[in-house]
Amino acid sequence: MSMQGSASTAAGSGRRGAAPVGHAAMRSANLSVLLRHLHRHGGRSRATLAQETGLSKASVTSLVGDLAERGLVQEGQVERRGTVGRPGTEVRIDPRHVAGIGLELNVDYLAVGVRDLAGVARFRSTVPTPVQDTPAGRSFPLGPVLDLAAQQLREALAEAEAQGLWVAGLTVAPPGPVDYATGSVRVASNLGWAEVPLAAELSRRLGAEHPPLELENDAKLSALAEAPRLARQCITDLVYLTGDLGVGAGIIAEGRLIRGWSGFSGEVGHIELDPAGPACRCGRRGCWETLVGFDSVLAVLDEHDPARSGQLPMTQRLRRLRELLEAGDARLEERFAALPADLVRGAGVLVDVLNPQAIVLGGYFGAFADLLLRPVQEALDARLLADGGRVEVSASALGLDAAAAGGAAVALERVLEDPLRAPVLSA
Amino acid sequence: MSMQGSASTAAGSGRRGAAPVGHAAMRSANLSVLLRHLHRHGGRSRATLAQETGLSKASVTSLVGDLAERGLVQEGQVERRGTVGRPGTEVRIDPRHVAGIGLELNVDYLAVGVRDLAGVARFRSTVPTPVQDTPAGRSFPLGPVLDLAAQQLREALAEAEAQGLWVAGLTVAPPGPVDYATGSVRVASNLGWAEVPLAAELSRRLGAEHPPLELENDAKLSALAEAPRLARQCITDLVYLTGDLGVGAGIIAEGRLIRGWSGFSGEVGHIELDPAGPACRCGRRGCWETLVGFDSVLAVLDEHDPARSGQLPMTQRLRRLRELLEAGDARLEERFAALPADLVRGAGVLVDVLNPQAIVLGGYFGAFADLLLRPVQEALDARLLADGGRVEVSASALGLDAAAAGGAAVALERVLEDPLRAPVLSA
Repeated sequence: MSMQGSASTAAGSGRRGAAPVGHAAMRSANLSVLLRHLHRHGGRSRATLAQETGLSKASVTSLVGDLAERGLVQEGQVERRGTVGRPGTEVRIDPRHVAGIGLELNVDYLAVGVRDLAGVARFRSTVPTPVQDTPAGRSFPLGPVLDLAAQQLREALAEAEAQGLWVAGLTVAPPGPVDYATGSVRVASNLGWAEVPLAAELSRRLGAEHPPLELENDAKLSALAEAPRLARQCITDLVYLTGDLGVGAGIIAEGRLIRGWSGFSGEVGHIELDPAGPACRCGRRGCWETLVGFDSVLAVLDEHDPARSGQLPMTQRLRRLRELLEAGDARLEERFAALPADLVRGAGVLVDVLNPQAIVLGGYFGAFADLLLRPVQEALDARLLADGGRVEVSASALGLDAAAAGGAAVALERVLEDPLRAPVLSA
Repeated sequence: MSMQGSASTAAGSGRRGAAPVGHAAMRSANLSVLLRHLHRHGGRSRATLAQETGLSKASVTSLVGDLAERGLVQEGQVERRGTVGRPGTEVRIDPRHVAGIGLELNVDYLAVGVRDLAGVARFRSTVPTPVQDTPAGRSFPLGPVLDLAAQQLREALAEAEAQGLWVAGLTVAPPGPVDYATGSVRVASNLGWAEVPLAAELSRRLGAEHPPLELENDAKLSALAEAPRLARQCITDLVYLTGDLGVGAGIIAEGRLIRGWSGFSGEVGHIELDPAGPACRCGRRGCWETLVGFDSVLAVLDEHDPARSGQLPMTQRLRRLRELLEAGDARLEERFAALPADLVRGAGVLVDVLNPQAIVLGGYFGAFADLLLRPVQEALDARLLADGGRVEVSASALGLDAAAAGGAAVALERVLEDPLRAPVLSA
């Protein structure tokens, strides 16, 4: 199978107006409608597909043929429980041939994931981010971080190839806003980076032949990754909160990602909630991040506690915190008891501005959902202004893999949007 | 011309997924593409239309014929400056036959407006909202308010008919979130209303035969009304701030209105910006509304100052404030000097969450733009985190007519979305 070698940006940017429709575009649009319908709602018969999409049965048959030729859908037997007669056949997403790859480049870890068209994780790998401890503090040396990121991507590409998967695209998630036009990281303050040409640097390291590479912010990808789970509950308006060193929000409204005009939406870590609050490294006071960032938890521990070490995998650091809590560490217990009220101060603002139906807690918020979920839900319920409806608080189902999973999903968007991008299977 | 009699809701709700495309729908979609193109970009030749929309020249000619038959477009001579030869013809929006009507139902005034398809105001009327001063304070008696609103709508309909305009729809804007499914006002706390079946009550008062009647929140309509002005500067991400007794935000992201899952987006008057701030009537502390609402200005005046009287037209109350300021009223000068910092505390949060390219000041903020605009712009510039880009602050160009103008625009959306809704002109 062929691979395209290019570093583009603006994953499915959605900045398109209504376009006029010709006959070739009509066929392509209808292929997309069918594939999306199966992707969203699961396998069903041709007759059901025709009924639900409004396409004629003849059109459905012809379009399904095109999709099957590209290994995007397959036919299978339906098990009908409790009925007599021969089993029907249904059309389903074919998970065997097409995949997307996502890489999260975080302050604490690099996580890569390969997902097939059915959304199943085919490969995952997480390693600590290279960090230098200097007398002045921590720094994240650009070269080694990029080298390791490229190595992770190469490993994922090799795994996909070994499993017979054509890769639709690569999406890389830095912890900060992205310049979609140039493929650079505008600012990743917790890494100490600004205006890094990330797409070009990774593309160069990968060599000439690689699938299209795009950038998207970590919080936005995590929101996209959680969206299908919530869509199954008919929830299309949600806010995902990253719980890392910083706090970012991924916003989805009416099923669409809200990026902001320059990609800076959801930079909520520095909303000022208290003019008399603690000083923030950004220069303001009472920023949300000072109240609920991961550092606000680590700060209560001894300086050399292993949970504070950036050299250790994040899973081990979280496990260490859990052990301390289970051993009855009073400082941590106190911190986690105060956390819900501070979380709700910021989350309440997001509810008033955006009116989401769901808030998803990611990062360490999600890892300690057993302690945080109920008090956060109760405090949000208590502050409802009027019958705006209850906001459902849940923990991320994807944990530390959320942004990488979202990246793989965004890469697969390329095929859902235009199924003709996938190559015809060789016989 | 026929009029439809129904009270529906959810003006152009935008909750549609990708739909499959058949041939009839294709024609209807292409009529909409052409009409929107002319509506957004102004008159142009058939050749230019074909080039810009990607439609064939033959299709454009045929589609323009359909649109002209319904009085939506017309042909005219182009004046070519500095060129020789016979003048070309161009296709333009025809403003003579189709209109929309918007009514704002505010705490202080009822404003109605008729706008034609070219966006020109054909009729405007503003009257003070009926108010009862009781020992307990002010109340807004439901029956008299609804009667007056219906009277305003009847007057506007009669004006439209007298001018030969077919009315595509009526949009009514209460000062609070709307239940789109039932056509009721969920809560209008400053009117003391909750769960008022506004669409049904007005529809009943208008009688059986009237154009479709929809509800939409005032801040959201105002944002929609200002959007075309900003779109001409290529700005598609904006926040409109109502500056009334309460403060609400209308949010437009990538050209689309963000409603929130239950219509409660932009309820920003009660975001808590200071745990030690003044008590709000909502029960919280340090709400943005307590810092910048119209009452925070009126409160510095004598109790019986005419500016505080709800019996007077809003324009007169604003004029009174202006006179006091010009006479050097020290209390007002001090209040207006403190206002920008308080405005930016809330606006800054909206910038961090939404990353808009523009903030539009409405209501009394807009009326005193000469005092507020520059300091607000400077304070927002000073708090930029990184190169997220400068937010342009401007005053509403529509002033107290903004929500009514937005309502008329939403009503006209019905025709832009499906031009076949407009009746064929009688010969």
